[in-house]
Order: sequence, then structure tokens, then C-alpha cells
Amino acid sequence: MPDIDASRLLGDLYELRKIGEYKTGVHRPTYSPEDVQSRHWLEARLRDAGLAPEIDGIGNVIGRAREPGKKLLLGSHLETQPHAGWLDGALGVIYGLEVARTLGGGIDVAAWADEEGHFGSFIGSRSFCGLLPDAEIDTCRNREGTSLRDALRQAGFADRPRAAVDPSRYVGYMEAHIEQGAELEDTGKRIGIVTAIVGSHRFRIVFEGVQNHAGTTRMAIRRDAGVALVELAHAIYQRFPHVVGPRTVWTTGRITLDPGAASIVPGRAEMLFQFRDTEPPMLVKLDGELEALVAEATRGPCSVTIAERGQSTPQRMDASFQDALERAAERHAPGLHVRMPSGAGHDAQILAERMKSSMLFVPSIGGISHHYAENTKDEDIVLGCQVFADAAADILASA
Amino acid sequence: MPDIDASRLLGDLYELRKIGEYKTGVHRPTYSPEDVQSRHWLEARLRDAGLAPEIDGIGNVIGRAREPGKKLLLGSHLETQPHAGWLDGALGVIYGLEVARTLGGGIDVAAWADEEGHFGSFIGSRSFCGLLPDAEIDTCRNREGTSLRDALRQAGFADRPRAAVDPSRYVGYMEAHIEQGAELEDTGKRIGIVTAIVGSHRFRIVFEGVQNHAGTTRMAIRRDAGVALVELAHAIYQRFPHVVGPRTVWTTGRITLDPGAASIVPGRAEMLFQFRDTEPPMLVKLDGELEALVAEATRGPCSVTIAERGQSTPQRMDASFQDALERAAERHAPGLHVRMPSGAGHDAQILAERMKSSMLFVPSIGGISHHYAENTKDEDIVLGCQVFADAAADILASA
Repeated sequence: MPDIDASRLLGDLYELRKIGEYKTGVHRPTYSPEDVQSRHWLEARLRDAGLAPEIDGIGNVIGRAREPGKKLLLGSHLETQPHAGWLDGALGVIYGLEVARTLGGGIDVAAWADEEGHFGSFIGSRSFCGLLPDAEIDTCRNREGTSLRDALRQAGFADRPRAAVDPSRYVGYMEAHIEQGAELEDTGKRIGIVTAIVGSHRFRIVFEGVQNHAGTTRMAIRRDAGVALVELAHAIYQRFPHVVGPRTVWTTGRITLDPGAASIVPGRAEMLFQFRDTEPPMLVKLDGELEALVAEATRGPCSVTIAERGQSTPQRMDASFQDALERAAERHAPGLHVRMPSGAGHDAQILAERMKSSMLFVPSIGGISHHYAENTKDEDIVLGCQVFADAAADILASA
Repeated sequence: MPDIDASRLLGDLYELRKIGEYKTGVHRPTYSPEDVQSRHWLEARLRDAGLAPEIDGIGNVIGRAREPGKKLLLGSHLETQPHAGWLDGALGVIYGLEVARTLGGGIDVAAWADEEGHFGSFIGSRSFCGLLPDAEIDTCRNREGTSLRDALRQAGFADRPRAAVDPSRYVGYMEAHIEQGAELEDTGKRIGIVTAIVGSHRFRIVFEGVQNHAGTTRMAIRRDAGVALVELAHAIYQRFPHVVGPRTVWTTGRITLDPGAASIVPGRAEMLFQFRDTEPPMLVKLDGELEALVAEATRGPCSVTIAERGQSTPQRMDASFQDALERAAERHAPGLHVRMPSGAGHDAQILAERMKSSMLFVPSIGGISHHYAENTKDEDIVLGCQVFADAAADILASA
């Protein structure tokens, strides 16, 4: 198996890190000037590597191998969460570039636009897979209120065609990523082979009561939306541990009380709640549990309404690709690899709708991610890329 | 007993309502141009009524009776909460003006600055009572960050002396106010005679955990600050009903999770919590209950710290003044009056530190307050003022 060039790999990652540098991390929101700069930078790198690069009408950067024959598609994303880490996304893109250079053929490389969801949900990879309707593009906005159409125009991508997958071109898709958790580190492993990507069900739960003066309104007549919220959240935290699977996670990420003043009984309250699991039946079961708890909550003095904010389907990673990754991992890090689910969503779950897909994880120091302190040891970065390259060569050879 | 002039009373209230008019209410934050205008308007009205008016160095408007002898001080406030009601504060000030005109002597009238707490806590009445140190004035700011000193300068009051109470001048203090609750309306009463003003203890409770990815962080290793907050709030809601008094109220007015994103386990959470009661021993008891619950919460995976944001002391209203108000109420609205505590704070609790004090309530339609829809029936406004005038005359006559 050919050796990757460790200093070339790290050199490219360091150079990319400078675009939008923030403390020890990077601030490169989708379609920001820094993000656009990073896409043009990658386009040039792909050309240097002998690929035919393009940036398409949604901002995807795709470098295609020029020779005939089946290709393996390697990719991830370039944009970051606000003031976040330097490896989340970038690692997988530069792994793709490095493997393309190392193998000298058979590799297409992609940087999918907006995996981080500034404007929507996986809009780059969904666009490529034919899963993003034009009508949805019209409705997407970021938190600042900029429309996706305007952002694409400002980025200079608006008038380009959107690239569409030709499934017959590909053996499959592989994506490398930092783990974003501490399981590898905690268990002393250096490579994670992803078995499945979790699906998530995401909800907005709204409580409507009556806003009132916190001094003059007797407890007996209050309809306090904040109390209703706290009691439902508590009921969820009590119930879920008894019904979830071993890998289920559930989170209340935001709570808002309106008007949110110390001396006003809140008339409205809202929570963002989600759960994730790799097993579709578990997600269905938890939908039912949540519904029952909400129904119970509506018996109180406040109205409770639950709206789905979105859901993603769990995706199993291809078994033969997992085997190839495992063989490569065992060659370079015997005994230091593990099969594990991905608790985070990734573009691979979209690509899996169109072709065999798989993922490789490298350890995150302290499990930290979505923070500028995010990091991975250089030796783990290099090891991960070599394992990725070996597996890619193996898969291409047997295609 | 002399009759008040109902149309003069309502006319002044309507005229004052135009200064900072917002929908059916008023937007007149402390020291805003509209608030300053209302103070000058009142100064002119007091002069027309034969009083000697001044606006002092903290913005208090005080109209002093010119004749010798003991005086009764009547007052309330002119500024409003943002986009709030037309009667909260204004009613009591204009009652004072109308009673001064009706009785033709013996009445001083005051509009205390910033009862609504835009810059601090009862700074106008505390200044008058010698309870506001210069050093505290230096530190006060409103939500927009404007310092109290700058606001006073812009209002044109900065170079004036601050008026100080001469307790030997006064028989006592009376304040009329809208109830801001629905107890009078719900029980078909038209006059409330305040027995005591509640004290409040106010807290900021902060939970520190570890911020993490909501997909990749297993439940077992999470230190979710939001979960810790929900569990403490739930524990408070479970415990308090068993230990409080019949009139105690307790409120969580604000909850914040940081960073407040749907897919991030909150690393920090904060709640603003308060309770109120008329009995000092009950407040002390609840301090202890809250402390015990917080201590229990610190055994979980997050740190919990509690800081006092402030507290006020319950104040009993003078018994003989209550009797005078009750006699007057029985004369004009037989059987339609009730003795009740005030769940809201008022300047009367500050004045009570220096002289006999009392309060009269008129009904709030639907109990609504701190909202532009706040209102009171005209006939209740007129009735309340007549009762207030009778009681004032009664108290002055027996002084």
C-alpha cells in the first residue's frame, strides 16, 4: 500500500487553518468571505493534485479524477461552527486530497457546503444527491436573516449549475472525521470504524399560560408557562432512562421564558428538545413516549404544543467498507481500533442514500468539539490518513 | 367631608396619559424625555393647585403646602414600565393632587423617581428618606447601560439638591395604587386597604457543568447544566407548597441555558428565582429551605452557586390609617372593601421607615398590569379618590 506524505498532509491542514483563524481554532461560517476563500483555496489544491475541480451552484467543491473507470468519492466539509475548531470537516476534506495525491487516481474529492447547518440541513450533500428541492433553497436563511439565495449571490456561486451525482461513476463514498466525543480517548483507541450514523428527532415544545405580576398573582390562580416547562422536562428526564437503548442520547439545548423578567410570571415558555439513536424502532418508540408525556402535561393549567423541527434517519454504514477500514486499521494500529456508532450527523448519511458509504473517526482530545480548543494529536491525524488511504486502495482494487 | 371633582381628576389622568402614549397605555421609562416632560407637567399642576413645587436632584417632584401645621404626604410615581399601563403610579400621584385641591390645605404631594426600578431600587423615595448613599448613585445604570448620573444630567436635574424628609412636618404618608392583581375583581370588592407590603428575597442561581456535543456525548458522562437547573427548579416546586404561608408567592422569571443551541449540551445555566411574603420569619424560613435544596443539588454532576440579587423587608401599614381608610370605604362603598396585603413593592414601604404609612388599592380590570391593556373602571377611579380624600381629611382632623 502506498504511503501518504505526512508533512504534506499536515502542511495543508495548517494552511487551511489560517483562513478564518480564531484563537487556536477557526471562524468560517458558510458563505462568509473566509469560507468562500477556503473553497477557492481547495479548488486550486485539487487542480494542483491533477483533479478537475469545480465549485457548483450551492458551493460544493468537487475535484474529479480525469482518468476513466470507477471512482471512490472522499469528502467532508470546509465551513465551521462559529468560533469553532480547525479539524471538524477540514480533516476529512484534506484526507481526501492527500489520498487522491497518494493513490494517483481513482479518487474524487468533495467539500460539501454547509454541513454545519448555518442555512439548512445538509444542503450541499443533499443538493449533490438530488434531495434538495429548489423550493427549499428559496426558504433557507441563516441566523442573521440572510437568505441562502443572497448568500450564494454574494459568494459568487448563484449562477452556476448544481452538480448532481452520477451513481454509476462511484464504487462508494468514504468520509473521515474527528470523533467529537471522548470514547476513543477514554478507551485508549486510535481509530473508530463507524457502524451507523444516528438519526435524530428534533422538537420545539411551546407552553402557553398567562403572563402576570410575580408579586400580586396568588399561586392558586397562576398559569405559569415556566413551571409547566420545568415539570415536563423533569418528567422526560425521569422516564427516558427506563425506555431508551444503550446508545440513545436526549438533550434540551435551549429554554426560553417570556418575557424573561425576574418579577414577571412567564406567560410563554419554549424548549428545544431532541433525541438520537441508530435504531429506527427506538426513535419511533421515543416519539410515542414523548407524545404521552406531552399529553399528560396538557392536563395542567397551561397549553402545551409540540412541533417537529426536523428528523434524520439512522444510516447503516456499508459492511464491506467497514471490513476494509478494519483491515487497514489492524495493519497500522493493531488492537487500537473499534467499531462504534456516530452520535453526530455527517454528510455520509446523505451520500448513503445513493451509494455504499462509510466513515472513519480519529480521536478528539478531551472529546472537545464545536469549540476553538478542539484538537487531535498530529500522530493520530497522520495514522488516520494512512488507514483511510489503505482502505481506499483496498476498496478500489476489489471494485 | 368635601367632595372631590371627578371630572377634574379624570381630566388630569387623561392629560397625563398623553405624555408617552403607547396604544392604550404609556411608555415613559425613568428620565426619558417623556418622563421628564411628565415631571414638569406635574410641577405646573402642583403650582396651579397652590402648592410650592420643586423637582429635586434625583427627579422627585414634591409639592409642599404653603400654610403652617402638620401635613399628610400623598404620593406615588410617574414613570412606567416599558410599554405599560396608564394608571400604575400615575393614579396615586393624581389622587394626591386632587385631594390637595379638594382639602385646600394640609397636603403635600410627591412623585417619587424610578419606583419602577429602571436604574435601581426605589431610588427616589430612598433618597427622600435618607436611605440612598451617594456611592450607590454612582453605580446605578439602566438596561441600556446609561449611568444614573448621565441620565440625571440629560434630564437637567443633576445640579439640584436632593430633597430630604423632615419627619416632624408629617402626620404620615398615604399612597393609592391600582391593585395589579385580580383579587378585588374576583371577590366583587371595590376598595382594598393594604395591611402590609410583602418583602421579597431575590436570587440568581448558576449551574456550571461541561458544554458538549449533543450527539457524541454519552449520557453517562454528561454534566448537563440545564438538567441540573430543571431538577432544582422541580425540587423547589415540590417542596415550597409544604412549607410556605397562605400568601407566599415564588417565581422563576428567567431561565438561560448556555450556549442555548439545540444540539449542544449546555455547559452553564442560570435561573432568576424569588419569593415574597409579608412575614419576616417566613422569609427567613424559605431562605433555609432554598439553601438546603441548593446544597442537595450540588451533590449532582454540576456545581451550583446561589447569589442574592437583593431583598426587601416586609412593612406593616399603620393600623390607625387602615381604620381611617376602612371608615371612608364603608361610607362610600359599604361592604365592598377588604383588608389585604400588597404582593407588589411600593414607595410606601420606604416611607414607612420614616413615618406612619398606608395604602389604598382600586381594582385592576382582569388583574392586568405592566401591560398597555392595564385599566380600571372610571367609577372605581372616582370612588377610590373620594375614599382616599375622606381618609386624608379624617387623619388630618385627628392629628
